[in-house]
Amino acid sequence: MEKKVTFEKTKDNIRLFSLNSNLPLAEKIARNLDLPLGEVAIKNFSDGEIAINIEESIRGKDIYLVQSTSHQINDYYMEIFVMADALRRASANSINLVIPYYGYARQDRKAKSREPITAKLVANLMSRCGVDHVIAVDLHSPQIQGFFDIPTDHFTAQPVLANYFEKNYLEDKNQAVVVAPNHSAANFGRVYAEILDLPLAIIDDREDEEGNKALHPIGEVDKCQCIIVDDLTDTGSTIAQVSDVLMENGASEVYALVTHPVLSGDASDKIMQSSLKKLVSTDSIQLSENQVNEKIEQISISHLLADGIVRVHERKTTGPLFKQEYMRGFED
Amino acid sequence: MEKKVTFEKTKDNIRLFSLNSNLPLAEKIARNLDLPLGEVAIKNFSDGEIAINIEESIRGKDIYLVQSTSHQINDYYMEIFVMADALRRASANSINLVIPYYGYARQDRKAKSREPITAKLVANLMSRCGVDHVIAVDLHSPQIQGFFDIPTDHFTAQPVLANYFEKNYLEDKNQAVVVAPNHSAANFGRVYAEILDLPLAIIDDREDEEGNKALHPIGEVDKCQCIIVDDLTDTGSTIAQVSDVLMENGASEVYALVTHPVLSGDASDKIMQSSLKKLVSTDSIQLSENQVNEKIEQISISHLLADGIVRVHERKTTGPLFKQEYMRGFED
Amino acid sequence: MEKKVTFEKTKDNIRLFSLNSNLPLAEKIARNLDLPLGEVAIKNFSDGEIAINIEESIRGKDIYLVQSTSHQINDYYMEIFVMADALRRASANSINLVIPYYGYARQDRKAKSREPITAKLVANLMSRCGVDHVIAVDLHSPQIQGFFDIPTDHFTAQPVLANYFEKNYLEDKNQAVVVAPNHSAANFGRVYAEILDLPLAIIDDREDEEGNKALHPIGEVDKCQCIIVDDLTDTGSTIAQVSDVLMENGASEVYALVTHPVLSGDASDKIMQSSLKKLVSTDSIQLSENQVNEKIEQISISHLLADGIVRVHERKTTGPLFKQEYMRGFED
Amino acid sequence: MEKKVTFEKTKDNIRLFSLNSNLPLAEKIARNLDLPLGEVAIKNFSDGEIAINIEESIRGKDIYLVQSTSHQINDYYMEIFVMADALRRASANSINLVIPYYGYARQDRKAKSREPITAKLVANLMSRCGVDHVIAVDLHSPQIQGFFDIPTDHFTAQPVLANYFEKNYLEDKNQAVVVAPNHSAANFGRVYAEILDLPLAIIDDREDEEGNKALHPIGEVDKCQCIIVDDLTDTGSTIAQVSDVLMENGASEVYALVTHPVLSGDASDKIMQSSLKKLVSTDSIQLSENQVNEKIEQISISHLLADGIVRVHERKTTGPLFKQEYMRGFED
Amino acid sequence: MEKKVTFEKTKDNIRLFSLNSNLPLAEKIARNLDLPLGEVAIKNFSDGEIAINIEESIRGKDIYLVQSTSHQINDYYMEIFVMADALRRASANSINLVIPYYGYARQDRKAKSREPITAKLVANLMSRCGVDHVIAVDLHSPQIQGFFDIPTDHFTAQPVLANYFEKNYLEDKNQAVVVAPNHSAANFGRVYAEILDLPLAIIDDREDEEGNKALHPIGEVDKCQCIIVDDLTDTGSTIAQVSDVLMENGASEVYALVTHPVLSGDASDKIMQSSLKKLVSTDSIQLSENQVNEKIEQISISHLLADGIVRVHERKTTGPLFKQEYMRGFED
Amino acid sequence: MEKKVTFEKTKDNIRLFSLNSNLPLAEKIARNLDLPLGEVAIKNFSDGEIAINIEESIRGKDIYLVQSTSHQINDYYMEIFVMADALRRASANSINLVIPYYGYARQDRKAKSREPITAKLVANLMSRCGVDHVIAVDLHSPQIQGFFDIPTDHFTAQPVLANYFEKNYLEDKNQAVVVAPNHSAANFGRVYAEILDLPLAIIDDREDEEGNKALHPIGEVDKCQCIIVDDLTDTGSTIAQVSDVLMENGASEVYALVTHPVLSGDASDKIMQSSLKKLVSTDSIQLSENQVNEKIEQISISHLLADGIVRVHERKTTGPLFKQEYMRGFED
Repeated sequence: MEKKVTFEKTKDNIRLFSLNSNLPLAEKIARNLDLPLGEVAIKNFSDGEIAINIEESIRGKDIYLVQSTSHQINDYYMEIFVMADALRRASANSINLVIPYYGYARQDRKAKSREPITAKLVANLMSRCGVDHVIAVDLHSPQIQGFFDIPTDHFTAQPVLANYFEKNYLEDKNQAVVVAPNHSAANFGRVYAEILDLPLAIIDDREDEEGNKALHPIGEVDKCQCIIVDDLTDTGSTIAQVSDVLMENGASEVYALVTHPVLSGDASDKIMQSSLKKLVSTDSIQLSENQVNEKIEQISISHLLADGIVRVHERKTTGPLFKQEYMRGFED
Repeated sequence: MEKKVTFEKTKDNIRLFSLNSNLPLAEKIARNLDLPLGEVAIKNFSDGEIAINIEESIRGKDIYLVQSTSHQINDYYMEIFVMADALRRASANSINLVIPYYGYARQDRKAKSREPITAKLVANLMSRCGVDHVIAVDLHSPQIQGFFDIPTDHFTAQPVLANYFEKNYLEDKNQAVVVAPNHSAANFGRVYAEILDLPLAIIDDREDEEGNKALHPIGEVDKCQCIIVDDLTDTGSTIAQVSDVLMENGASEVYALVTHPVLSGDASDKIMQSSLKKLVSTDSIQLSENQVNEKIEQISISHLLADGIVRVHERKTTGPLFKQEYMRGFED
Repeated sequence: MEKKVTFEKTKDNIRLFSLNSNLPLAEKIARNLDLPLGEVAIKNFSDGEIAINIEESIRGKDIYLVQSTSHQINDYYMEIFVMADALRRASANSINLVIPYYGYARQDRKAKSREPITAKLVANLMSRCGVDHVIAVDLHSPQIQGFFDIPTDHFTAQPVLANYFEKNYLEDKNQAVVVAPNHSAANFGRVYAEILDLPLAIIDDREDEEGNKALHPIGEVDKCQCIIVDDLTDTGSTIAQVSDVLMENGASEVYALVTHPVLSGDASDKIMQSSLKKLVSTDSIQLSENQVNEKIEQISISHLLADGIVRVHERKTTGPLFKQEYMRGFED
Repeated sequence: MEKKVTFEKTKDNIRLFSLNSNLPLAEKIARNLDLPLGEVAIKNFSDGEIAINIEESIRGKDIYLVQSTSHQINDYYMEIFVMADALRRASANSINLVIPYYGYARQDRKAKSREPITAKLVANLMSRCGVDHVIAVDLHSPQIQGFFDIPTDHFTAQPVLANYFEKNYLEDKNQAVVVAPNHSAANFGRVYAEILDLPLAIIDDREDEEGNKALHPIGEVDKCQCIIVDDLTDTGSTIAQVSDVLMENGASEVYALVTHPVLSGDASDKIMQSSLKKLVSTDSIQLSENQVNEKIEQISISHLLADGIVRVHERKTTGPLFKQEYMRGFED
Repeated sequence: MEKKVTFEKTKDNIRLFSLNSNLPLAEKIARNLDLPLGEVAIKNFSDGEIAINIEESIRGKDIYLVQSTSHQINDYYMEIFVMADALRRASANSINLVIPYYGYARQDRKAKSREPITAKLVANLMSRCGVDHVIAVDLHSPQIQGFFDIPTDHFTAQPVLANYFEKNYLEDKNQAVVVAPNHSAANFGRVYAEILDLPLAIIDDREDEEGNKALHPIGEVDKCQCIIVDDLTDTGSTIAQVSDVLMENGASEVYALVTHPVLSGDASDKIMQSSLKKLVSTDSIQLSENQVNEKIEQISISHLLADGIVRVHERKTTGPLFKQEYMRGFED
Repeated sequence: MEKKVTFEKTKDNIRLFSLNSNLPLAEKIARNLDLPLGEVAIKNFSDGEIAINIEESIRGKDIYLVQSTSHQINDYYMEIFVMADALRRASANSINLVIPYYGYARQDRKAKSREPITAKLVANLMSRCGVDHVIAVDLHSPQIQGFFDIPTDHFTAQPVLANYFEKNYLEDKNQAVVVAPNHSAANFGRVYAEILDLPLAIIDDREDEEGNKALHPIGEVDKCQCIIVDDLTDTGSTIAQVSDVLMENGASEVYALVTHPVLSGDASDKIMQSSLKKLVSTDSIQLSENQVNEKIEQISISHLLADGIVRVHERKTTGPLFKQEYMRGFED
């Protein structure tokens, strides 16, 4: 039986808006909430300037604004800045940004002298424009929450993806293993290992003396169904290579669970041509037609976000959203 | 004899950097100042993220950062934000933004309810990123200076363009007229009329009952060499139409002096096919090859900006830059 | 039949206060809203210090504070600052400033080097004192809205004045013309021309070679009833001179519609002695007895402001206030 | 022999400006520093608006701005705000406000519910306008320094006044007493008692049962030369009454040493008609002609301020300014 | 009959939390309000780091946070900062700090060059962490309210202590006197004198020529029951010495009414061994077992704070809390 | 031959101050810089209040303030806040905090709902107090740099410790291995592996089914000299256990290189009793006498910090400090 997201209190004061990056996801959230998407016209002038016109009064309303920041990342961030500024000037009561994919999250520290910390910069800019609250999903590093002084809710798509994988692809719990594709993903992988009650292997990616990355798995993968997990895949190279290495090390088959399918350049092709069986990701990022192929699946997080919006709006705890059981049975 | 821009004091503490939008102008400024352009690598990752790496120490330096914000306007603004943030974190002593063309300047007021005031927004964001001082050229409205609380210097290319026009194209002072292409440009036009000591005509652009814009000149243009003046031309339509109207009203020939050649879409073609003889503009915006044609000239404002940078850096008044005499004789 | 301004929801949470500049207008607004004026004692000590004592609890209330800033402009601005600070410290829920006339609005740009931008400065200071929202009327330039980061509502008295003029003085639509007294007022005049469905003429005020301003009308005025329109009249000179010029050019009679009757010095006398038939303005500024004479009429904007306050307080759109039809039938 | 105030380092970078409240003091400071007063035109338009025009380049300069804030207190504060904002926009290096008399200093706490704390408010506003540093003299309460987050220097005129009194009027150290005119002035009085090495008496001003203030001295005053001391006298009533009470209690004669001669309304007359022999104050406030009479003396603090400006500018300690010996020998 | 503190409106939105400094007082307030104390775990790691875990959802709640800042003053302030920051990040609607004793309040001015103004500093820091509103009791100087820009409520325990003293210890109104132990306490003492309708004496504490403080009472104390009053007693020395001086001057017996019993070091012993009969203070500070002795009584201010919290929460005036009559009959 | 840290430019403008946490390190830095430590008196009153008195003029000086924040962490942070505030009020030109150990760094993210992010909070508070620049050493996570908007310099003690280890303890490059004691330390360990040109092993610390942490090394350790590396050791448990596990797995001997020796509680005893041969750490934290034992060595980072201070002060790049070669030869 299908679960529903419902408001217990009045919806009078809430308005849901979508910017340009991921309209299909916003529309699903709207359907889940049984709310219309707010009327807003977003144009680009011929010189590239964004012109936003909010076509209904939002005075005193609590706005939930859905925007991912992939690919045309700078345009999409500017849309957020311009829209938030316009909402503030139009007397919105609160501006809650739902940002399923937080671009620039990987630039979260100065690895070298004089590097920018752009993940912090965009946090500063969003606050400066009047954003009051941020809802994000599987941030690249949890420290990014500390880049904000405004309240943030950090959701995770892990229970959703784990449930889906378990129901559709998991063959034998005793012959499966979660794989972190590098050391940085170890903590992220451990959570999946706990959810799925599976062991964890880690790919060691130190460079050899010639400067080539030599990948080898740490932990048992032989004869195992391997599940590579990560917060995002960008060029697809890591996942494709790790899949090959796992197969070389005796894996029976390799899947990947990845929240954000950035899939830049020819990443989809690389996935298609790799030994990977499936890349299961979410619709946090809208894929173009030529990014889609039969190895790539997108599971919707619209229920997660819709339920989260209700909880934030009705001032309830978001705790249940992190529970695997709770997230079961939401269907698109 | 050619004038030179020279530093009277030491140049030790100054660093000149260029971002991506208008490297040729930045290089000219650098040559004028006899300064190298600072080493900075600006990459775009395949997902569009900007990555900046400042490749020399700028600790304690006064940075002059040249960036126009035309066409890929959102990318170019994000470059400013990211670079300014990186410079601040790298302990720059001051960050002076030289922004020859200030995109979004036309969005300077709420014409309708709930419209953004994006010209103010980008001013807020530049301040938030650590920009200490802004040098701009021929802003769309002078009130934009009030959008900043940091010091701004508002330069004008009018003496440069007027000098050039006088020397190269002006035929007979007694048979020439400056033309403001609409009411909003009247104040801007009056300045040119004073510089060139010519009368001013204005184009009235009220709509007729069918909603068509009916253009007609107010003031004498018959048998006159007409000089349309404006801060920018975007789609080229206004200038082309005004030129035609002026010819219909007896003008002997029509020129346009326009600071910022935005020239979106097929604007250059429109100019080429119009009755306009020449569009004389500046290099505040870098034109692509297919935007250039024989009717479009770009006069460099590199001397204006180079001299301005020296004056700002050496704490002198910028007053002379507004004087026609002073600006004479600078050559590219 | 007379229209009424009514609250649809409870008035419990609203408090209306007036400072010293325009008590009659505040009292009318209070009557329109059927609300008492809040109890506040404003004294000036013998050394000029303002002492404010709010004599009722306003904890948690939404405050609407009425103050114009004409003539004793610095005292009146300081009253705003002191009152807003006291309201904030006394735990007001929100502080909404209703500022029918925004003094210093003409200082909105640096016309010369090192000039202040005082219109921005007072915007900064009001925000610093805790003002959350500003309601202004016919600002000198629309860019002033961008001087604020807090929400602003920009009302216009044009429908009110146009309705009044149409009902009382307009003789023949086919023989009347709206006149902008200079180029800066052209956009403002165009709105009146649209509301009244009349043509627009503009006064060209270029200086001749001796530096005298030579006024002459552009557009047809002969045998016409002329309606000079502007946001404010200060010394009265422009309006008086323009009226004379229009009469010299064959106007049948000349009226002026001006939102803010600043009328400094002997402006009222100038108006009285000019060829102008009537100056129709609003009560955005309280006139002293010796400023009033039979040529000067003040139409109240209390209904406009009262209705606006209800709409802001009840979180409705203010759109209808800009419609001529809607504003008809409100009577004092 | 007369002492001199001299710069040890270059004066190139310093500019001294005066606003309207106390030009004679500013001129004296300028003479002491051998510096010209900066060129600034301050006009009031007929509607009261302040228009400031700084008539020389101050880019990169350290500005010392002299303004007292007595009597036309709101105009004088607005002059500070407007001037500071203009200086900031014109790229001053630092803005140091020399405020010999800090108006509104008595409104430094909420004595009743919902009272403003205007002394804090004006501190906030000065910071908001770009003032970087404040030099004040004998603030009404020392906690006002905590109202600022910018550095403040709190000077005292006590050594200057004490030196003058000692040299000119003190008759017999063994028959003289410092008198604090009320409990609040006790701490201030104690400092004078130490400087002059005299005992301290305090006036108890409790109200009797009829609500009349009954003044009586605590401490020995019989046959003594009494010196009433306070930071300011406003209406003159307290000093006049205390003088009478002291005479009734056997005082041989009564003087008053008061830093700030506010002298509102008929205060000067009250002083003239009282039993007080002399009111010795400073020129922190410029007196109008009808405020001056033969009982009122003004000792200049121009040397104190000039020396303080040099010390602040040359980054030296201001400690010596608080020493009686050091301040001796400065002559006007 | 015992009075009760009751909510008139729903308590749904309020949460009361206590930090570590004074749990007994917080528990009493909770009982008075019939509210549970919020669940929060506050640990100190072995290296001293505070770790706070709020164990219930507080999203959208109005938080009242009780913390005194005595003795382990730096730990207790850090607990406030950390808790406020956590509450803000967890989307609390408002954070109201109830700070019965405000440590560092005596550092409220620069008595010497380069001294900190720590009372202002902690005000800045509390605001920076997200505290929205402060409720304090008998602040050392009333100017401290001006150190905040957020709303503050300044309560006084004087009516509570005066009522208790009157009911339990006052012998004969005609033979009793309120005593301010030094000049600084004179204003504070005057309020008690008014509440109790008694005369006021002041202790003069000037140093004699050997630098010893010579205390002597000003005003009649002979044969009187003396009531020393002050905002706090820290080392106990002043009160003990003043008590002795009063006895030497013929006092019949000496009590002290002191809001905040800081009682550092061996202060309690000094009190015990002095001639003082009783020190009546409040429970604004929790005393350790070895600070308590039979001369020291603590009257609870839990009703005062509980009633204040209800009034603040329900947006009512706090005026009645300052009335002696109103505060009568509240019992612990 | 011993290297020296020297100033190339004048030292006139620099002042070095130490607070209470680590005076020996500050004194060494002072000796290296040939600078006196600034005169400051830091007292704790009997109630715990910190009182700071800066006993020399610091007007216009660039202050370098040395303070670690271990153990009495809250007192030590409050010392920073109070001192920075006092320095700012005393007109310091810049305030550069040298914080060898940054306490609270481990609280850098919300691991559970409603947890504070205290590492960000203290960054906010330091900025609020006037700190302009932060120099830190081996922060727990590099993202903490993004918690600041002011410039930060992030130094590392790794070259210093690696050099020392290599010179004193490293036996055979071909039989040694760097060990990261858990996954989080993997990146930190990789840097050491590169510096020392050794392989890296990682300890996997997953819990078994009974919830016990089961440690086992990943990578070859048998017969190897093992070097456990981490940013800090707090309770000593991890290092002691890891050492035992390594010995059980055949390690020849085990050393630890740890930047910050927090060593809370009985950590030193645990180290002493463990199989660990030596714990080599730095003097970023001052150890008490009973924390010191023969297995614990502290290598001074005074040269690193002294050299860093000179580079920051003289506006040079700090790049060389990260080079192993450069850091060689500095001796205590």
